[in-house]
Amino acid sequence: MAGVISSVISIGDELLVGQVVNTNAAWLGDRLTRFGIRVRRVVAIGDERSTIRREIEAAAAGSDVVIVSGGLGPTHDDVTRDAVCDILGCDMDLDRGQLARIERRFTERGITINERSRLQAMVPTAARALPNDYGSAPGLAFTVGAARVYVLPGVPGEMQGIFTDRIIPELHELAGDVEQRTFLVSGITESGLADELMESMALLSADVTLAYLPSAGLIRLRAMRLGASTDVYERYHALLDLIAAKGGRWLVSDRDETLAAALGRLLAERQMTLATAESCTGGLIGEMITDIPGSSAYYLGGVVSYANSAKENILGVAPELLARHGAVSREVAEAMATGVRGRFGADIALSVTGIAGPEGGTPEKPVGTVWIGLATAGNVRAERFMLGRERPYIRQRAANTALEMVWREVHNSTVKR
Amino acid sequence: MAGVISSVISIGDELLVGQVVNTNAAWLGDRLTRFGIRVRRVVAIGDERSTIRREIEAAAAGSDVVIVSGGLGPTHDDVTRDAVCDILGCDMDLDRGQLARIERRFTERGITINERSRLQAMVPTAARALPNDYGSAPGLAFTVGAARVYVLPGVPGEMQGIFTDRIIPELHELAGDVEQRTFLVSGITESGLADELMESMALLSADVTLAYLPSAGLIRLRAMRLGASTDVYERYHALLDLIAAKGGRWLVSDRDETLAAALGRLLAERQMTLATAESCTGGLIGEMITDIPGSSAYYLGGVVSYANSAKENILGVAPELLARHGAVSREVAEAMATGVRGRFGADIALSVTGIAGPEGGTPEKPVGTVWIGLATAGNVRAERFMLGRERPYIRQRAANTALEMVWREVHNSTVKR
Repeated sequence: MAGVISSVISIGDELLVGQVVNTNAAWLGDRLTRFGIRVRRVVAIGDERSTIRREIEAAAAGSDVVIVSGGLGPTHDDVTRDAVCDILGCDMDLDRGQLARIERRFTERGITINERSRLQAMVPTAARALPNDYGSAPGLAFTVGAARVYVLPGVPGEMQGIFTDRIIPELHELAGDVEQRTFLVSGITESGLADELMESMALLSADVTLAYLPSAGLIRLRAMRLGASTDVYERYHALLDLIAAKGGRWLVSDRDETLAAALGRLLAERQMTLATAESCTGGLIGEMITDIPGSSAYYLGGVVSYANSAKENILGVAPELLARHGAVSREVAEAMATGVRGRFGADIALSVTGIAGPEGGTPEKPVGTVWIGLATAGNVRAERFMLGRERPYIRQRAANTALEMVWREVHNSTVKR
Repeated sequence: MAGVISSVISIGDELLVGQVVNTNAAWLGDRLTRFGIRVRRVVAIGDERSTIRREIEAAAAGSDVVIVSGGLGPTHDDVTRDAVCDILGCDMDLDRGQLARIERRFTERGITINERSRLQAMVPTAARALPNDYGSAPGLAFTVGAARVYVLPGVPGEMQGIFTDRIIPELHELAGDVEQRTFLVSGITESGLADELMESMALLSADVTLAYLPSAGLIRLRAMRLGASTDVYERYHALLDLIAAKGGRWLVSDRDETLAAALGRLLAERQMTLATAESCTGGLIGEMITDIPGSSAYYLGGVVSYANSAKENILGVAPELLARHGAVSREVAEAMATGVRGRFGADIALSVTGIAGPEGGTPEKPVGTVWIGLATAGNVRAERFMLGRERPYIRQRAANTALEMVWREVHNSTVKR
């Protein structure tokens, strides 16, 4: 199959001056790719009517689908709607259905609607409105030549909501019979995993694909089929079997989820509780765990023991251990894990103590040295990792490594709590 | 002045499939804007030689400066160097200086250099190598027509390092006499601030600008002058005076820094220590504070008291308070702040307890309700905030609001500790 090609256009001056990171484009790229729709190009441009027109027309010339986001709001610098009129050579008309929806939204919140907000119900006559259940401005859909163009608000929640509700059903029809599965892999390098899955080479083609998506010590592995012939089906399922057989030792999840979500699901299944003691990660691990809605079912909480006094007073780490071995040591990591487990009454506890830099490294314990501890009812142990040289990367790697250690410990334990 | 125009091109398949968020483009947009160089357009494309050539040539046609990042690595899908040869119509040659530098890098780490890594010292003969003190592949500089084109590695640390060391000095010369100051403003809306600074309208022009950069309850306010005439100088300094006079109440910093950095600097100056008790933010505040190198000088640590049992056992919140008022209440926020301050022996402590959703809201305490507490030696108090409806936004707003409350408390206190 030839494949469906798409382009993404992000509109907003804030993207060009670096005020906002373009997470919308990443989200859209991820979603489109899951439907087997290849993203050819992402463009970010300012709120400028003629530029918007030119970029949409250029993208439409080389794509089957163009997703545009931004510039639909109520302020004078939101000109995307006008640019669409320029492209389609049409006027705007008040869409009474959209206006009623927007007015209802304001009434529900007890806010008086102003004229500017009402203008968001103006829809280019040659475009179709995509109702917005998450905000005011409706999305727009129209065609330029053979390309389908969708225009969405720039607010992430609204963009994602309309895309999911209104556009995905239409893309399904366009992309045909596509299926994919994303695995979360940990504890092996990308090239190591590729060696393990060497036999996959004979199964892959343009319509059965395997993508390695590494970041900070984890790999997302995505298998996909595009099309539904017997041959495609057979190779796709042979690929899934191969991943299960050869990659099994490193598979953390066969759902498309974060490591924190996979761990949370496992802890909830086993009815186990977790506590954390963080030094160099400073709260990052707690933040990742509690980013998952419902994490209160298994996460009791943690201690950020940044100062040695906190390690002593709150976690009960013996001052002699700190004096003899230093804060970044097997002994202190173990004592932190045991201490936090006891303090919170958790089934399992993790600890992290390391040197995130840029200062604090020594020849024996250079920047990047991280000890991770794990305590359960009957056992405590710690491992040392060397996690690179840059502070943010060291912290992210340390957090991922700690969560993976807990996942593996719980996964491999046969008994519940 | 006409202004210098730039374009940014980010190269890498990982950007198109949404595996990686394009933080490089945001970083470059921010840096270029600071030099008064307008970013016209950001494009992300895949690792495809002909596409890279086409995009660089198209960007060069409409820009004075083109910054390209990505595709200089050692693997077979890194083809940016080849695309540069196509553009310049030249071959590549081994740059012995660069090779020596790369070999030294490997030797220092005790790694044997392979042939692929050696290839990174190949430089298109019509381009100039920009030495890389942060990794292997050197950057490249060349001209296409009147445009200066710079090509950098995609690894953020290397990209930022080479840009700062090698390119900024050249941009200085190109952009002319540019000066800017960025203020951090908190506790006022963007439109409220614009009203306060109404008189600035008379001072602004194409060469004296004022930008409002809001995010999650904070505003970065950036004043800039482009050019050095007496008139420009006078209006720029009148603008700075106006900001100090009218915006003073809301100014957290007149340096370009994060809220956590401004707070850290203030705490260090006052020789005060801080502890945190986080519930719905789950460690985010600790993570933001410890993101700043050197934060151990003032941050003792914190407790993530996600479960009520943790609030009771570790922070000493009375069970009756939790039973009578609920975990999200003034009383519990105050008890958490007092408790964590005592546990850590800190000069000042903050607490956050709220409903981040999507579950857990009630008519009396809907999702978005957050209580923030503050405890010092002589005082404890808490304030309620309604911080929106989406979990990540609520958490970020809560963290910013809590850090701001501490900053204001310390800033307004006349005595040291």
